[in-house]
Amino acid sequence: MKLFIGNQNYSSWSLRAWLIFSQHNLSVEVCKLKLFTDEFYQQLESITPTAKVPTLVDGNTPIWDSLAILEYVSEQHLQGKGWPEDPSQRAKARSLASEMHSGFFALRDELPMNCRAKRVVSLSANAEKEIARIDAIWSEQMAENGAGWLFGDWSIADAMYAPVALRFQTYDIPLSSLAKQYQQKVLSSPAIQTWLEQASLETDIVEEDEAGIERA
Amino acid sequence: MKLFIGNQNYSSWSLRAWLIFSQHNLSVEVCKLKLFTDEFYQQLESITPTAKVPTLVDGNTPIWDSLAILEYVSEQHLQGKGWPEDPSQRAKARSLASEMHSGFFALRDELPMNCRAKRVVSLSANAEKEIARIDAIWSEQMAENGAGWLFGDWSIADAMYAPVALRFQTYDIPLSSLAKQYQQKVLSSPAIQTWLEQASLETDIVEEDEAGIERA
Repeated sequence: MKLFIGNQNYSSWSLRAWLIFSQHNLSVEVCKLKLFTDEFYQQLESITPTAKVPTLVDGNTPIWDSLAILEYVSEQHLQGKGWPEDPSQRAKARSLASEMHSGFFALRDELPMNCRAKRVVSLSANAEKEIARIDAIWSEQMAENGAGWLFGDWSIADAMYAPVALRFQTYDIPLSSLAKQYQQKVLSSPAIQTWLEQASLETDIVEEDEAGIERA
Repeated sequence: MKLFIGNQNYSSWSLRAWLIFSQHNLSVEVCKLKLFTDEFYQQLESITPTAKVPTLVDGNTPIWDSLAILEYVSEQHLQGKGWPEDPSQRAKARSLASEMHSGFFALRDELPMNCRAKRVVSLSANAEKEIARIDAIWSEQMAENGAGWLFGDWSIADAMYAPVALRFQTYDIPLSSLAKQYQQKVLSSPAIQTWLEQASLETDIVEEDEAGIERA
């Protein structure tokens, strides 16, 4: 399998897809393309109709969306273990993953992922509401499942919310105590530490993801 | 199982979830709530954290997003038959479904689903591009699989694109010949005919979904 990703500093959807390989020690060739360069479009246009990252190529099959990749890898390479085993927990994990996949637009717009930065931004009421919703999700799952991942063992739901933990660090967003605990769990995980190390070696700037002013 | 949906004239995400039950003759109690009324929020807030439709309740388990519902029903009630059986086709169907779930914002904004109307709208360049992409998807699948559903047998990919077939009818969007053929397949299907009949009995107006002017 070959996974095309964008700049690790900025590409939150790339991180989501990459995490399932890292967490499950699944072998994959990672091909990093600099976002929005000519080479980026040239490489991807020959593989996918949308020229977006992440794109996974398994044999001759391209899969060109983060959630589709995560479902595919879980089903075809992990015997469904991408999700919690219990059907009810599995349903909740899928609801939470889909909620991220199709929503949280203010957060995505106002708090772009930017791993190496420490910034201050002013937030819209919608962004505040979305942050409160994420705080509630993380807190509820911590209260239910203890100080592990959202559903105890790592699942695709954690992949979907991982970039948010990074964003909340970049923009220093205050969280309630259980949500903070989950954020720390994500940030200190070996997979995220590896991602951050690789991101820190990048020097390219993607202007549209450079929100806010440096923190004092 | 109990499926909460919104006004059938307007709620495209409700239609997507509803279709899998209809296409597979799966028994479900449908509970229709008038969008954005007090009753709508009261009923949903006691069941889900997001108070959105569609929401499925299976036993005590709520599932509150269309794609999560479709994956859940396929996996738990249809032995995975919501998607094509061949892994490569299955991967492509998931990519196309996710592409709709997380994108096509201009189309969703400028061509809101409004089953009973016949309207004219002026389109942004982004909307034109999205329409061309959908035309290409439908045409490619028709060319590959013949004059059936997107992947031969009905799949969740068809659920995701069904409201678009209705929108293209409402706003009289020109399509290439194979794409038009697929649109007709959707519009003439018994499930969509049933949905349209039920929608035609509704009289409520949701102002924000009333785009465009009446066609002469």
